[in-house]
Amino acid sequence: MSDKEKRRILTGDRPTGKLHLGHYVGSIENRVRLQDEYDCYFIIADLHTLTTKPEKENILQMRDHMREMVIDYISCGIDPNRSTIYLQSACPAVYEMNLIFENMVSTNRLTGLPSLKEMARNAHMDSENMPFGLLGYPVLQSADILMPRAHLVPVGKDNQAHVELARDVARRFNLLYGEVFPQPEFLLSEVPTLVGTDGKGKMSKSAGNGIFLADDAKSVEKKVRGMFTDPNRLSADVPGTVEGNPVFIFHDAFNPNKEEVLEFKKRYREGTVGDVEVKDALAKAINQFLDPIRERRKELEQDKGYIEQVIYEGTEKMKEISFETLKEMRAAMGLFGGWNKISRVARKRMENVAG
Amino acid sequence: MSDKEKRRILTGDRPTGKLHLGHYVGSIENRVRLQDEYDCYFIIADLHTLTTKPEKENILQMRDHMREMVIDYISCGIDPNRSTIYLQSACPAVYEMNLIFENMVSTNRLTGLPSLKEMARNAHMDSENMPFGLLGYPVLQSADILMPRAHLVPVGKDNQAHVELARDVARRFNLLYGEVFPQPEFLLSEVPTLVGTDGKGKMSKSAGNGIFLADDAKSVEKKVRGMFTDPNRLSADVPGTVEGNPVFIFHDAFNPNKEEVLEFKKRYREGTVGDVEVKDALAKAINQFLDPIRERRKELEQDKGYIEQVIYEGTEKMKEISFETLKEMRAAMGLFGGWNKISRVARKRMENVAG
Repeated sequence: MSDKEKRRILTGDRPTGKLHLGHYVGSIENRVRLQDEYDCYFIIADLHTLTTKPEKENILQMRDHMREMVIDYISCGIDPNRSTIYLQSACPAVYEMNLIFENMVSTNRLTGLPSLKEMARNAHMDSENMPFGLLGYPVLQSADILMPRAHLVPVGKDNQAHVELARDVARRFNLLYGEVFPQPEFLLSEVPTLVGTDGKGKMSKSAGNGIFLADDAKSVEKKVRGMFTDPNRLSADVPGTVEGNPVFIFHDAFNPNKEEVLEFKKRYREGTVGDVEVKDALAKAINQFLDPIRERRKELEQDKGYIEQVIYEGTEKMKEISFETLKEMRAAMGLFGGWNKISRVARKRMENVAG
Repeated sequence: MSDKEKRRILTGDRPTGKLHLGHYVGSIENRVRLQDEYDCYFIIADLHTLTTKPEKENILQMRDHMREMVIDYISCGIDPNRSTIYLQSACPAVYEMNLIFENMVSTNRLTGLPSLKEMARNAHMDSENMPFGLLGYPVLQSADILMPRAHLVPVGKDNQAHVELARDVARRFNLLYGEVFPQPEFLLSEVPTLVGTDGKGKMSKSAGNGIFLADDAKSVEKKVRGMFTDPNRLSADVPGTVEGNPVFIFHDAFNPNKEEVLEFKKRYREGTVGDVEVKDALAKAINQFLDPIRERRKELEQDKGYIEQVIYEGTEKMKEISFETLKEMRAAMGLFGGWNKISRVARKRMENVAG
């Protein structure tokens, strides 16, 4: 199937730096698969970062962060020859579309979004004193989605409401100005949340409980050795609990030797295996999983300018695509047509006067 | 004083069509004067219109409306050779600045603005269900003001809060990223509200109580004849009230013959003058006031393409100025610098690979 016929997907991340196993399990693995069937656009959503972290320090950090992130993407199998990785802030169309779309959404539609309420809570704000840009970030997201006229957006259960908002924006725009946008649908992908090495919550950079795709073998061994297991099991001969035990969650996720995993679980429940043996096998499995990713990373890091070229070409492509969308938007609205007419008439007069 | 040294003023209107005497008294007269001392930028604020009237019909109407408005501006003495008249939606910088500034303002700062509450009330909405774009329109206004780095904004008492918001945005931006914007100040200009011909409220197009700058002499006579006066005065020999009487308000505003006006007031109070005599004198005065404006209008209308050229050249000038501001903003923030670096490195690699 040619790219023209493939349906388009929009998804991506804020540039928060190198990715960990939680990202892999939660989204990257799925995205790699989606490339076979869809025309995929991966946004590096730096403008979204500004809604919660506008400080200059964070802006400067994003430069390295996006590089690290894209290295991780490609190392894991995101293929820049098939998919488009682009930098949000470098596409002029997104600013204009955002402003236009802000008139297609009511304020309480935004304040009522549970995800926004949660973001505000996490930042110790309520929807009243949050930055106006944060309240508007689902509108900006609608612009992201509608810019390449994406058909599908892979989401977890938390973010369905945002795609519904983008649908509403598309519907409202089409109603006011004529059919320009397909109504994007969400692609509910199972997003298993991977627990952190401390077993205390989901893996995250800020919690310091992550195993990163860029970690070397030694670091992985060390982190796995330090993983939390069954807290009630004080020695190898005490029967332990497998369910919810981080070490076994990771075994299930990354150890392809299912027989070995079953055997470990059995022995763990009986109290006939030590933590060290289970952990060493896990570290080995994770390292085997990471080895081809590491190899690819090494190649990428040696190829000076390659990552920049991927972002550059992806962004230039998105600039073209989004400008096409913008042109159709403008034509439908008739706003820019007024300016075009003014320019035409004015230039004609200026020529006549000059001639 | 050269333009470089003059302080900059930003003000303007939504393109709602031809202007009436209320506009003249309320703002145009003042703007004409301000040109002597300041470098003036007059915005045709079409994007603001979208916040309350996004319908296509309204967008298409704006084309004629802005033409009529600019003809009125220039007929009254706004001088395109000294001042800049520009079309908001045609300046790309405004979209980007708006998005960035949305992160510099808290939501409750906007919901708390009395002017917004009033706008919402007038449109039978509360601040909750108003369009998100309407809630954000003071932020867009901040972008308008900061785009040419205006020093002053002429306002009535109702709109001081909006200039204060623009000050806050400038202050917050400068604090986060370094000194880029002067803090705009408001220029509190007396804005006498002119009553409508029906004496029932201020002159407005929608109330149908306006005398337009474009009205011909006959229309003015007819409208003045139909003006409300003292409702208790049933014939010419009944003493009447001058205070708050529309006919005398207009005499005070437009009849340069102060002696005649005093004499009329005296006779009106005594009951020794008929409405018709007072009104005929008023119509004559207004027509004399409008005659030079009409003459200028006639010239302008015959000069095909001139109004378009004024808007075109003003907008092109503002595009340049605003792009300069945007470049400084971007440099201060460091956001675009990341993209510039990516482009540079990528192009270098592409050249090397090609070579």
